[in-house]
Amino acid sequence: MYAIKFKNKRLFYIDQTKLPLKELWRECKGVAQGYRAIKQLQVRGAPLIGVFAAYCVYIGVKGFGTNDCAYFIKQTKKIIHYLKSCRPTAINLAWALGRLESVLDKHKNTEVAKIKKIILDEANAIYRQDLQLCKRMAIFGCDFIKNGDTILTHCNAGFLATAGEGTALAVIYEAVKKFKNITVYADETRPLLQGSRLTAWELTKRGIDVTLICDNMAAYLMQQGKITKIFVGADRVTANGDIANKIGTYNVAVCAKYHNIPFYVVAPFSTFDLSLDCGAKIPIEERNHNEIKVILNKLKVAPKNVKAYNPAFDVTPNELISAIITDRGIVFPPYRASIKKLFLSR
Amino acid sequence: MYAIKFKNKRLFYIDQTKLPLKELWRECKGVAQGYRAIKQLQVRGAPLIGVFAAYCVYIGVKGFGTNDCAYFIKQTKKIIHYLKSCRPTAINLAWALGRLESVLDKHKNTEVAKIKKIILDEANAIYRQDLQLCKRMAIFGCDFIKNGDTILTHCNAGFLATAGEGTALAVIYEAVKKFKNITVYADETRPLLQGSRLTAWELTKRGIDVTLICDNMAAYLMQQGKITKIFVGADRVTANGDIANKIGTYNVAVCAKYHNIPFYVVAPFSTFDLSLDCGAKIPIEERNHNEIKVILNKLKVAPKNVKAYNPAFDVTPNELISAIITDRGIVFPPYRASIKKLFLSR
Repeated sequence: MYAIKFKNKRLFYIDQTKLPLKELWRECKGVAQGYRAIKQLQVRGAPLIGVFAAYCVYIGVKGFGTNDCAYFIKQTKKIIHYLKSCRPTAINLAWALGRLESVLDKHKNTEVAKIKKIILDEANAIYRQDLQLCKRMAIFGCDFIKNGDTILTHCNAGFLATAGEGTALAVIYEAVKKFKNITVYADETRPLLQGSRLTAWELTKRGIDVTLICDNMAAYLMQQGKITKIFVGADRVTANGDIANKIGTYNVAVCAKYHNIPFYVVAPFSTFDLSLDCGAKIPIEERNHNEIKVILNKLKVAPKNVKAYNPAFDVTPNELISAIITDRGIVFPPYRASIKKLFLSR
Repeated sequence: MYAIKFKNKRLFYIDQTKLPLKELWRECKGVAQGYRAIKQLQVRGAPLIGVFAAYCVYIGVKGFGTNDCAYFIKQTKKIIHYLKSCRPTAINLAWALGRLESVLDKHKNTEVAKIKKIILDEANAIYRQDLQLCKRMAIFGCDFIKNGDTILTHCNAGFLATAGEGTALAVIYEAVKKFKNITVYADETRPLLQGSRLTAWELTKRGIDVTLICDNMAAYLMQQGKITKIFVGADRVTANGDIANKIGTYNVAVCAKYHNIPFYVVAPFSTFDLSLDCGAKIPIEERNHNEIKVILNKLKVAPKNVKAYNPAFDVTPNELISAIITDRGIVFPPYRASIKKLFLSR
């Protein structure tokens, strides 16, 4: 199971906006289409949009008929910057595209055909690395789970969000292999319902015991003792361990704190942005108000003229996070020190 | 503006499931229809279903052709018990129907035509009293509001939820009359979206500055300092000041506590159930899972075979409540004592 496929130099993706009703694979034939796919969340999930965008660059330049290396690089960088501008919060997009940029900078006097191959190799490397990152996080994260746990998750951090098995959900997949009795509650995750449309679909497909709830029910479940642990992914982690993730994550974290339930974040090194001191500096994407007022662009549920506010992410401060599970190991508070150590130790 | 009308011995109601797209008035022609209207939330809101059910009893018996008083009372009580069973959480339903039952018990040897009139008089009295309760709560609640406040509310506690101007929203209407600058954020209130469909509609119709958000965004707004106060209604208040209200209320209350934002509950005496010691004893209605999986019975958003959990209410413990605003005055913690005093003082 996977969310994108790259085969015979062609890029395919499941259109996630059609899930769970239809499993529609599309081919990405150009950069503009790739940009739209990311913007409209046909392809989403912080690690996945990084991988996908890297392939998009290759798709955009593979047929480019020039032998002028400088011109080729200039045009390729335009594509990179264009794709980078698509969504601001998840750092993985900028991270993956930054890798391509670095590669270009190292090959300023290479023939175009070779640079094309180098771009493809780098995209493939990003893809294969993400597969590995998911595996490593899954194994590290499993240390926190015991048989009988009932885990709450928010949004989708599974195979639809990465090249591999996911971040938070990869941990759950690993735990289910290891233990008999793991159950999951999935927040539906308004406004775009990644929980009901994607997480419920993924987990059901895998035969995992999952129960869907509305976002506002999570606190009530915690009060009743129905949640033993919380696992979520992240779109960006800053130097002090603050995290940005799908809107509603902060809400879950506050409620978890109140009920003394451990709250774990699962994110690969590619989601860390050590250039930012704290979460307040993360740019938060605000999306179209109609995502709230017209559900999935199909069902009008609010008066036409009413205002709405639609931040797509929120920031959970480090003090609400029990541990951050990365591909390089686990970091605990105080995060500024432990994150520094983790990244300097390589 | 009102949600039900009783005119020429006929009972009419706005079908709230059609809002905000259509303002459809229906006539309630019998008890079975009234039961369905309450069950399906065509008529909803704790105080309103009490008032509506009282009129339903009259509609059910007005054409009843018997002169046998004992038989008439027996049949009327059957109707009362049937309607009482419709929804378990809001106590106002049982309270209003209980009033009719008491009236019946006092007229065991009265001619049927007279008892019919007595039932109608009692329903009218319940209706008129609710109008007054709303006015009084509005005035008391206004004491907590100052110019410039930004108020968050959950679900709908306005004129669509009562015979009058509402509970929580009545306070806001009063505050807007008194001050220039009051703004409101409305939680959309999944699964049935009373916030987007009803509260946004009501407030927009009244020209009040309202912004719609998804339930999971409230904590983020609090973090950003965008919410100064929270006002909600209640479906039942127990002797210790615990309250049951629409699912998600507890979530808001926990987040309010974390951010030190005052959390006010507005409820008339008819919502108090002093027979219950604490909120854990309130029966919580669980509704059909499809309310989560198929939005408003129209839009499928989840895999068909996934489980869902759909409690319609939750319980907010008294320690999260800054004050309870009633028609008889305001109660503060410790609630067991202050509630006792309030109700004994009459």
